[in-house]
Amino acid sequence: MAFDPQKLLSAPPIVTRYTLTENKAILYALGVGARELQFVYEDGLKALPTMGVVIGYPGFIWRDPAYGVNWQKILHAEQSTQIFRPLPVKGELRGETRFVALYDKGADKGTLCIVERKIFDEADGALIATANQTTFLRGDGGHGGSEGSPPAPHAIPDRPADKSVTLESSWDQAILYRLSGDLNPLHIDPAVAKAAGFEKPILHGLCSYGIVGRALVQALVDNNPERLTRMDCRFSSPVYPGETLATEIWIEGEGKAAFRTKVVERDLVVLNNGYAEFI
Amino acid sequence: MAFDPQKLLSAPPIVTRYTLTENKAILYALGVGARELQFVYEDGLKALPTMGVVIGYPGFIWRDPAYGVNWQKILHAEQSTQIFRPLPVKGELRGETRFVALYDKGADKGTLCIVERKIFDEADGALIATANQTTFLRGDGGHGGSEGSPPAPHAIPDRPADKSVTLESSWDQAILYRLSGDLNPLHIDPAVAKAAGFEKPILHGLCSYGIVGRALVQALVDNNPERLTRMDCRFSSPVYPGETLATEIWIEGEGKAAFRTKVVERDLVVLNNGYAEFI
Repeated sequence: MAFDPQKLLSAPPIVTRYTLTENKAILYALGVGARELQFVYEDGLKALPTMGVVIGYPGFIWRDPAYGVNWQKILHAEQSTQIFRPLPVKGELRGETRFVALYDKGADKGTLCIVERKIFDEADGALIATANQTTFLRGDGGHGGSEGSPPAPHAIPDRPADKSVTLESSWDQAILYRLSGDLNPLHIDPAVAKAAGFEKPILHGLCSYGIVGRALVQALVDNNPERLTRMDCRFSSPVYPGETLATEIWIEGEGKAAFRTKVVERDLVVLNNGYAEFI
Repeated sequence: MAFDPQKLLSAPPIVTRYTLTENKAILYALGVGARELQFVYEDGLKALPTMGVVIGYPGFIWRDPAYGVNWQKILHAEQSTQIFRPLPVKGELRGETRFVALYDKGADKGTLCIVERKIFDEADGALIATANQTTFLRGDGGHGGSEGSPPAPHAIPDRPADKSVTLESSWDQAILYRLSGDLNPLHIDPAVAKAAGFEKPILHGLCSYGIVGRALVQALVDNNPERLTRMDCRFSSPVYPGETLATEIWIEGEGKAAFRTKVVERDLVVLNNGYAEFI
């Protein structure tokens, strides 16, 4: 099927039932590099707030020919997660995924697509989180789309950071992370990575996101993951597995912070325009 | 319930349905330290032969009070896996677990319990593997048991090894391995490990077994995992996560080999009396 933004915008939600188990919560934590007992041992287990990005995830939908997307060329551009109730470590959950906006950047650039996922607890029907993903469809511009412009990025203060946290990724980080559901071969297959213009497989943007989420949980909420309630950012450059992520954090008032992350080895900003809320 | 060997011997088999998925096969491979694409990427994925030890595994049964076993004191003593048909990477399988022998070593020593598990493919009913586990119930001797003696260990030749392979474990190896089903807290909880007499959590015997299985696949069958058809050994000493495993291998004729594994850091034999078959 040819790529048709209007068809995506009017499509019904993709409903995904998700049985969350302690095993899955631990696997997610391992995938983003957490090794603290509270994230990897079922006795006293807590969920990382960024786990919202995998709950109810409908899979790597872009590879489905029904969407008509040049899937080898997509890039994850932005992510926003809001938590309304601390994520559980087990239970029956439901994801409802919608294409809420597609901004055409022209045939030579591509289309910016905002995919919203609401996560509900099937036990009581409550909305517990939203996970909004902005994907850049680099091979599919020039087909029109939504009116208006994407939301402006959060500004990073022009002063030294208040806190900083440096965390490592491992060379096999993507191999582990993908078991949480994003099987895009770009993150494991050298041939696919090369065809997409990378020298080797890159880390999932959402894996970097989870690693940086751990940095925020350490710096902002004293390792109490249930107190981090929002995390937004822009993915400005790919991370290779094994690189070190240094996150700078600016407190912006009661329960609000900005953040930005660099790869230490290349002194390159990889997550930018970060915004977090905490209680 | 009090520990009663005769009751275990006459118990019906524990039947365990097991849905094998590519994700599980990959998770097992990661848990035993494999990172080669053929073991961690669904495109061309192959099963490690030692994965038989987790297929249809009924869980850490000893913690169930119904068995009356002092579960904190058990040690995995021996393992034997025989593969009759290359293990698949997905499908519906069934495990049938029986207590086939309990040898009483006296009240001060404990009881050696042989647990046999047959693994069937539900698609055609074929027996595809057996996984026999010998567990030493150190806190439960003096209650009688089976007649006779346990099978003699395989002798290691008194000459230099023909091949050797050295593989590392990672400090978090047990945290990853346990996601394949053996949740015994001895392998993650410092307090439980201390109560059992160890300075810190030890690696699962079956995790070491899987790592050594990789060494055999490299040395004996040129990285073709489907050609390793049997692997037996005795666990002679615990391994701590992060230690390096050096396996010596002796060819004993067409398709047969002996092996023994030492922890390099402590120059200590940890897997002994190893016997492998290959085609």
